[in-house]
Order: sequence, then C-alpha cells, then structure tokens
Amino acid sequence: MGKAHVKVLTDTSKRVWVESYEIGPKDVGMAGTWHIRKTTLRGGPGDGVDLIEVNNGALVFSVLPTRGMGIWNVSYKGMVLGWQSPVRGPVHPSLVNALERGGLGWLRGFDETIVRCGLESNGAPCRDVLTNNMGQRVEMDLTLHGKIANTPANRVEVQVVPGVAPQFVVTGQVCETGLFLSQLRLTTRISTRAGSNAVTIEDEVTNMKGVPSEMELLYHCNFGPPVLEKGARLEVPARMVAPRDARAAEGIGSFDTYLGSTAGYVEQCYWYETIGDKDGNTLAMLRNAAANKAVVIRYNRNALPCFTQWKNTASEDDGYVTGLEPGVNFPNPRPFERANKRVVQLAPGARYKAAITLEALDTKAAVAKAQAEIAALQAGAERVVHAKPVAGYSDV
Amino acid sequence: MGKAHVKVLTDTSKRVWVESYEIGPKDVGMAGTWHIRKTTLRGGPGDGVDLIEVNNGALVFSVLPTRGMGIWNVSYKGMVLGWQSPVRGPVHPSLVNALERGGLGWLRGFDETIVRCGLESNGAPCRDVLTNNMGQRVEMDLTLHGKIANTPANRVEVQVVPGVAPQFVVTGQVCETGLFLSQLRLTTRISTRAGSNAVTIEDEVTNMKGVPSEMELLYHCNFGPPVLEKGARLEVPARMVAPRDARAAEGIGSFDTYLGSTAGYVEQCYWYETIGDKDGNTLAMLRNAAANKAVVIRYNRNALPCFTQWKNTASEDDGYVTGLEPGVNFPNPRPFERANKRVVQLAPGARYKAAITLEALDTKAAVAKAQAEIAALQAGAERVVHAKPVAGYSDV
Amino acid sequence: MGKAHVKVLTDTSKRVWVESYEIGPKDVGMAGTWHIRKTTLRGGPGDGVDLIEVNNGALVFSVLPTRGMGIWNVSYKGMVLGWQSPVRGPVHPSLVNALERGGLGWLRGFDETIVRCGLESNGAPCRDVLTNNMGQRVEMDLTLHGKIANTPANRVEVQVVPGVAPQFVVTGQVCETGLFLSQLRLTTRISTRAGSNAVTIEDEVTNMKGVPSEMELLYHCNFGPPVLEKGARLEVPARMVAPRDARAAEGIGSFDTYLGSTAGYVEQCYWYETIGDKDGNTLAMLRNAAANKAVVIRYNRNALPCFTQWKNTASEDDGYVTGLEPGVNFPNPRPFERANKRVVQLAPGARYKAAITLEALDTKAAVAKAQAEIAALQAGAERVVHAKPVAGYSDV
Repeated sequence: MGKAHVKVLTDTSKRVWVESYEIGPKDVGMAGTWHIRKTTLRGGPGDGVDLIEVNNGALVFSVLPTRGMGIWNVSYKGMVLGWQSPVRGPVHPSLVNALERGGLGWLRGFDETIVRCGLESNGAPCRDVLTNNMGQRVEMDLTLHGKIANTPANRVEVQVVPGVAPQFVVTGQVCETGLFLSQLRLTTRISTRAGSNAVTIEDEVTNMKGVPSEMELLYHCNFGPPVLEKGARLEVPARMVAPRDARAAEGIGSFDTYLGSTAGYVEQCYWYETIGDKDGNTLAMLRNAAANKAVVIRYNRNALPCFTQWKNTASEDDGYVTGLEPGVNFPNPRPFERANKRVVQLAPGARYKAAITLEALDTKAAVAKAQAEIAALQAGAERVVHAKPVAGYSDV
Repeated sequence: MGKAHVKVLTDTSKRVWVESYEIGPKDVGMAGTWHIRKTTLRGGPGDGVDLIEVNNGALVFSVLPTRGMGIWNVSYKGMVLGWQSPVRGPVHPSLVNALERGGLGWLRGFDETIVRCGLESNGAPCRDVLTNNMGQRVEMDLTLHGKIANTPANRVEVQVVPGVAPQFVVTGQVCETGLFLSQLRLTTRISTRAGSNAVTIEDEVTNMKGVPSEMELLYHCNFGPPVLEKGARLEVPARMVAPRDARAAEGIGSFDTYLGSTAGYVEQCYWYETIGDKDGNTLAMLRNAAANKAVVIRYNRNALPCFTQWKNTASEDDGYVTGLEPGVNFPNPRPFERANKRVVQLAPGARYKAAITLEALDTKAAVAKAQAEIAALQAGAERVVHAKPVAGYSDV
Repeated sequence: MGKAHVKVLTDTSKRVWVESYEIGPKDVGMAGTWHIRKTTLRGGPGDGVDLIEVNNGALVFSVLPTRGMGIWNVSYKGMVLGWQSPVRGPVHPSLVNALERGGLGWLRGFDETIVRCGLESNGAPCRDVLTNNMGQRVEMDLTLHGKIANTPANRVEVQVVPGVAPQFVVTGQVCETGLFLSQLRLTTRISTRAGSNAVTIEDEVTNMKGVPSEMELLYHCNFGPPVLEKGARLEVPARMVAPRDARAAEGIGSFDTYLGSTAGYVEQCYWYETIGDKDGNTLAMLRNAAANKAVVIRYNRNALPCFTQWKNTASEDDGYVTGLEPGVNFPNPRPFERANKRVVQLAPGARYKAAITLEALDTKAAVAKAQAEIAALQAGAERVVHAKPVAGYSDV
C-alpha cells in the first residue's frame, strides 16, 4: 500500500476551505476510472452547500459536509440506491427552521440516502425537561431528528490510499454545540474501495463537556425504486417485531413486504429486536420483488441495538420510500426513550463508536447469499411478531 | 419577431448558476437603451441575494429570485412606484425567522413592491389543524404570509425577444416543499416591452403531490410617494366594501382616500367584492391628489376574486404605504378562509393560473382614461359600503 | 496628524463589499508593525462571516461585521483576553435560531469577547406584551439577549489616521428593523492607537421610527484564562451588590473572587450599583490571583448605570468564563426592567450614546494603579453587599 494522498478541504480552525477540487487516477499516477470531486453548489435553496462526489468506478455517492456529512445520491453501476424526495435538495441548513410545523421543520431539507439523526436527540418532536443556563430544570421543545443533519462540518478531508484495491476516504468533523448546551462532536470516516459495491461509515461521537451528556444516534437509510417496489421485502434477523402504533398494527400482516406507490398512504413504523452473530454483527436487506436487486446495511448491534423500519410507500410524487434505521434508540420522543434506558449517557470526554456499511447487490446470487446469512443468524431463534404496540417500545 | 436570446441564470438540477450577467442592445445587434443586468448582492443582510434588474428604457424593476421571484424597486421614467420600507433590503431569507414575534417574522424581510403571499397559506398568523407525518390531525402554527417570499428560485431564465417592441422576460420556478408537507411549485413569467409603462406577472401554481392540496395566493402590491400622498385615492370597481375590523370601521367614511404621513397611524384594511368585465378582467388604480400620477394593477377576478386594500399611512420613517392586494383569498387566518370557501383545493397535478399587470401612469389624460374604464365597470352596479365588519368576510 | 486613509468595506446602499483587504505601514508610508486585515470566512458554520483583524502592534482584536460588529479574539502582547467558548466560532447568524430551546438559541453563536446584547431587548427569554401590526397589544416571546449580535452590518469602514500615535478605526452601522417592529440603528466606532493596550467602542443607537421606542443595551465582556483563574478577583467601585437569585446568594461570601474551573458549576450573577467620578466615569477590573495581569473596562455610568457580574467558572471545556456587563439595564426579563424604569425610552429620531474601553494590564504596577483608581472612587462610599436578592433588582 502506497502513501495516502491527503487533501484538507475544510478546516475552520486554520481558515482552510477549498471551493472546488478534483482528484483522479492521472493526478496520482494510478489506474482506474475513479474520481473524487468537490464542488460548492450555487444558486437556489442549496446555495453554499459543499458536495463531495466519490466515484469508485462502480459505486457513486456524494458526501454533504454542509449537511452534517450526510450521504446523498447513491448509485451502483447506474442503479439508483436512494430515493426521490419531494425535496429536490440538497437544501442549505440556514433555510431549514427546525421549529417550524410543531417541530417538523427538518422535513424541509430531508432528501439524503443516509442521514444521521441526533446527536443530542432524535425522533418525534416533543417537550423534554432540560437544564437551562441558570441550572433550572425547564421544559423545552425538541425538534424532529435533532440538529446534526443541519450542522456544517468544520473539518473535512479526502484521502486516496493506493493499493491493490485503492481506498477513497472522506473524513469530517461536525460539532453540535453551544454554551450551556450539549457539546457533542461527531468525527466520521466514510470510505470505499475501487470497484467496490460498498461504502462504510465509521463514526465516533465524543462528549466534549466537563459533565455527563445524553446522546441519541440513528442512521436514517432511505431507499426507493428500483429496489423498493410492489412485492419488495425487508429481510432482517430479528427476535421481535412490534408495530409503533395503531396505524402500523393495521399492516402487521405484511409488515415486511411493500406495496407499490399508493397515494395517500400513511407511514407505518415497526420496531425490531435484531439478532447478531457472536460479535454483534448483523445486517438488514431490502430486496426487490424478483430478488435480484437489493441494498444491504451491515452494522454491529452492540453499538446500534435498535432497528426501525419506516414504510412510506406513498405516491412517487410524495416520496415513495422505506427507511432502514439502526440506532442507539428508537425514534420515539426522548423522554420515553430515556425512561426505557435507550438514551446513551456519555461521561465527560467519553466516546461512542458506531459504523454502518451500505452494499448494493445486483444479482440473484448476491441476494441469495445475503438471504442465507440472514437465515443463519435467524436459525434457532424464534421471531415474535406482535400484532399490537408493545409497552416499552411504544408509549402504550 | 426574431429568435429570442435566452440565458439560463439558475438551474439547480443542472448545477447552473451565473453570478453576474448583462445583456443590452449591443450584445444582440438591437437598438434602444434597455438592459437586463443580473448581480449577486454581497455583504450585509442581503449577502447572497440574486437580483435581476430589467430596464426597458422607461420602466425599471428588479426581480429577486432568492426571495421567491418578488418584484423590487420599480420606477417609471424616474417616478418611484414602490415604497420605502423600514427594511432596507433585500434581506436574505436565511435571516428571516418566520416564527419570530408570534409568527410575524416575515416583516423583517418585507420591502418589495410586489410580493406574493402564499402558497400553502397566507394572511395573519394563526393555529390551524394539519396532518402530520403520522397521519394525525394536529394543531400547528401558520406564519404571516407563508413561505414563498423567502424561498429561493431553483430555476431562473432571462429572455430578450426581438421585434417591433422587443420583449424582456424573466422566468422562474420556486418550490415550496418538504416531505409530508405541501408541495407547491410556482412558475412565473415576468415580462415587459421596450419603452412600455407596464410589467406583467403570469403565474402558475402546481400541486406536485399525489394527493389534493390547499393553496392560498395573494399579490401584495405596495406603493408609497409620490403616488401615495395626502388626498391620494384608490379607485376600484366594486359591489361591496367592508372594513376588516373595528379599527378599519373608524375610517369607513374615507376608506378610499388617504391621509398624509401620520405618526402612530394603525393600519386599516378593507375587503372588496370587485367587478370585472364579461371575462372577469378588472383593474384598480391608486392615483395621487392631482390625478396626474397613478399606478394601475390589472388582473382577472375569476382567478383572483378577493381584493384587499391595506392602508398604512404611518410616518415615512415607519413605512408610509398602501397595499393593493388581489388574491384567491382575503388575508384572514386560513381556518376562517377555509370555512368561507376561499382556500383553493388543488387536485394532484392540478394547476392554478393567475396574472397581474402593473402600469405606471404619469399624465392627467392617462389617469382619466383609467377612471373611465373603472366607471364603465361600475356602471349599473351599486356599490355597498358597510360601516361595520361583515360576517363571512371578517370573523365577527 | 495626517489625512486619514479610509476604506469602505461594506455599503449595501451602494452595493459595495470588499471580500478581502489589508493595510499596513508600507501601504501608506508609515512606520510600525500594525495592520488591519479583512477576510471573509469560508466553510463550516462561519461560512460568509466577515472578519476584520486589527493589530496595533501590541493589541490584536477582530471585529465581526456579520455578527453585529462584536469584538472577537482579543490578545495583548500574546496574552489572551477573551475566553474559550464551547462554540468554536464565529458562527454565521443564519445558523442561529434565537427561538430554539425556549429562547436560548443565541447561545449557539456566543463566543465573542465583547458582544452587545439588545437593542430592542436583552436579558433572559420571556413573554412581553407588544403591539402587533393591527395595533393590538399581544403577548410575544423575547429571546435571550436580542437580535443585534446576529444582525449583519450594512455599512463598514476602516480608517488609518496617521500621527504620533497612529489611530486605527473600524466603523459600522447595524440596523435592527422590520415593518411594525422596532427600528433601531447602531452606529459604532471601534478604535485603538499604535502600541496601545486599549480599544474603545463608541456607540450610538438611534430610534429611526416616527414613534417612541424602547431600547435595551448591555455590553457582555467575557474573559477566561489567564486573567481568570482560581483566586482571580473582580474589583468594582460600588455602593451596592446584590445576588440575582438563590443560587447567587449561595456564593455571596465570595462574590468578588473566583474558583478554578469547576465541572458542573452553575452560573452566579450579581447586580451592582457602581460609583463614578463627578462626570460618571468609572471602571471595573478583573485581575488574576497574583495581581499582575488584568483586564479593565472603562465607561460612563450615566450612560450605562447598571453593572452585572456573571460568574461561570465551569470546566474549561464548558466555558470557564466571567462576564463584566455594563448596561442601561440588568439582563432580567424586559417587563421587569420596564417596571423598574431601566428600559430606555427613545423619542422619534432620538439617539443614545454609550462607550466602553477595554484595557489589558500586564504588570503589577499597572494593576496597582487601577486598584488605586477604584479605591479612590470607593473612598467615602459604603459598599452594601446584600445576602439575598433585593426587590427592584430581582423579581423577588
């Protein structure tokens, strides 16, 4: 393995920022058809958004430093892996008012393939009791899915690591902070290899405060056509599946399969207790009806014990999509998650690590292989599917 | 008519954005003193605002793509047609927090001559019942005059169309959108001809959702000195005029004439039922005391059945201004407008068209001619002026 | 004294804005090692923030036009005078949602050494009764410390004035405005001399409205290590000191001395009635334990009658800091300040002037001299220190 080619694109502490940048094989005397291309969007609602496109020769995705290092616009050999949000983003965070619409303002900017929800909180908007500057415990509003996706990274770097399978890496640091508020620093390493069908996100969240801090983190991974379609199926090794609410309970008989686009469809969410191998490694696969196209996400359930399935098979105009959402918590209001011990407590200086790999599968064989993996994890474990919401998972 | 000279200034879907641009007669081998000049404002509260100045040789106005394609800074042969807002804008939307001050934050950016209010809602801030992501009907806050004026256009184009009277056109597309939210697309065509005293705005609002959607739209056309002055008058063919509230009722005896600048003046609003010709075409004229200067707005009352007069003859420092406001609705809280069937219901994919023309008049003859037009429309129809607010128009 | 070298960096009314600029001795045929350097920050949460660094050869500070002309990053001969906020700013105002967290959103951008709080209101978030567009008195939310620190200047100029001690000046104008809202214009002149240990801020706030207007103004001057440390002391000539609340009362026995960094420390605030000379001139000094390093702020108590001490000796990670805060008011909720006649009433066109000088002391002798000044002001006046909050100062 040769020496990595490293380029710092943003470092606010050193007043470094690169408006546009491109690196490809010719620039570094390597072979292949890959490139990394950094641009700054101009004009419209995305004016000022930094975008780093990584093309490993097969898998293409963009990283959005301005939107908390989210992953956008993924495709593999021309197969789209994301979804078509009614938001034609990316949208600059300065135009997203999280407080709007009873705390649902986050939805004005939501169009990523993988977007982190957190870090101080995520899930449904709610009131929670927090400590204010005067040390008083007071009620405050938490907004949908927190702030991290609308916080620009203060440090961004790209690396090309030569080798048999050259590696392409984007690292970033995003700080959710404020005096008297949480001070959570995300460092992320997003990497892929030349020709690979996979991208891996390795995250570390550090509590920068001198006092303990709460943390919630969820990876909202969103997929539409062509993998999502009528008859598509979500396959997850699980001990338990429960509907979030009465609406989800309506569909419990077919919770793991999907409708075609259905105008007026109201979202259904299901909570999963997943099964991992002896080290906690697990996976979830969304596959199409013919079982020859799929997306797989791999992660460790020790770090991300909760898994949420979000079904939103509305019309394509309204965002025909499903979300696969591993998290430290379920996206319930934080007080409920806290009561159920799913909010992470970070000591001063403590770090929390989580990682997730997204894979694109485009053959029947590859899908079958992933199915076998899932079956192996499921083997010997009963899967209980609850017909009704379950206390401790839902506020029933 | 020759081939149009077309220049795309913004197209976010193609990552096109032009920082500055100018076109004049020499650039296209034409005669005249006209120009179109696109600049991007830098520094201060307007940093990043795109501005397109159109000068047809007589009428000058600016289009603000970053502020929802509003019309700013209009003058005709040196006669100012807009007003002097206490806001010395344009202000970038990212600095306007619509939720501020009980939902009046829109007022921090308001200084256009013509600004659209809408598209999902406009009018006074209020609570309304909306459907959230979970399909639940919940109360949410609507803010003053909606979002469209603080939403940047994602596509902007200018055209110069040669001919006997060359035409200058700015087109734009602005999307009010978000997952689970309304998805209303405005396309606008703003045009004028060389030497003309008029500019025409042709709008189309499309419901991009797969389900029906509500829509409100109002053109807030604002004028100050020199047309507005002590003794100025608003002339509108109308069957009915009603005061909005007790404050407006105080001034009902002189609702159609104006005071000079009056420190501490509290706004008075009047609702009109206008009269159009057989096709619905109508007009409203604000003329000065001597009846030798005026602004006329022309539109079709089938598309814009409601007309609101906003009198705000405060001190010049505080914004001495009157608003002529044709709309699909009156700017009441949306629940009230809905109850009175003035909120437009758009089927999936349905379009709503509206247009408005602004004319500058600078001679006694021109004013007299417009007066004759208005008199002709009024002829044979009684005009009822209510002394008190009227149920159905005001929430009395 | 020679003719001043003047450079306009921002003038939105003339569409002037300079992205980067530098002036030093060579540029103007002068001696010395001073410079003024204007840059525009790019990337991260500060993207688009204008920053003017003034280095007089000994004292270095930055002015932030985009953040209301606040003072950032002060040092004197290498001695840091500001503090290390958990916010690693500057943060662009468009990313600060003042309404967040029950009105504490201002804290997401707070990392200045000197930041103005105001102009319409400052202090704790609260509900107040204001007049809306319809002339109605309604309840609205006021947010922590108001808007001025998150309002970009619309005019900025730098001057170099030759002479025996050349002077370096940054002037700016910031407008807090909106239709039907307050219309307060701040003009500031920030100046220092070559080799000086001091910077002076001369402010004028003008009520631009045609009707009377309220105004609050407080200079939040914030200092951390090395001056602030265990055993550091605040020295202020005062007739009276009172704790803000029960938490402050706990520490009344040592209100004027400081702890080292203390994880979990909850802020303590004290109100002062200061003593000035016959013209009202007074000073406050924060000095280190050894009394050989200090910061002094000088101002006139006729203009700034209220003085607040903010102790926040939390861990260094959480912002180990104390605030010296001369103001026209105490930072209580505005209704309380109004009731106690500490909200300024400005007639139409009226101006309010205030000035503050920050000095860095780095010798025992200089500290002793300032102590002697303070002692002289205190001489003959009793200092009453209240053990409990006092009515009229706190809402008890």
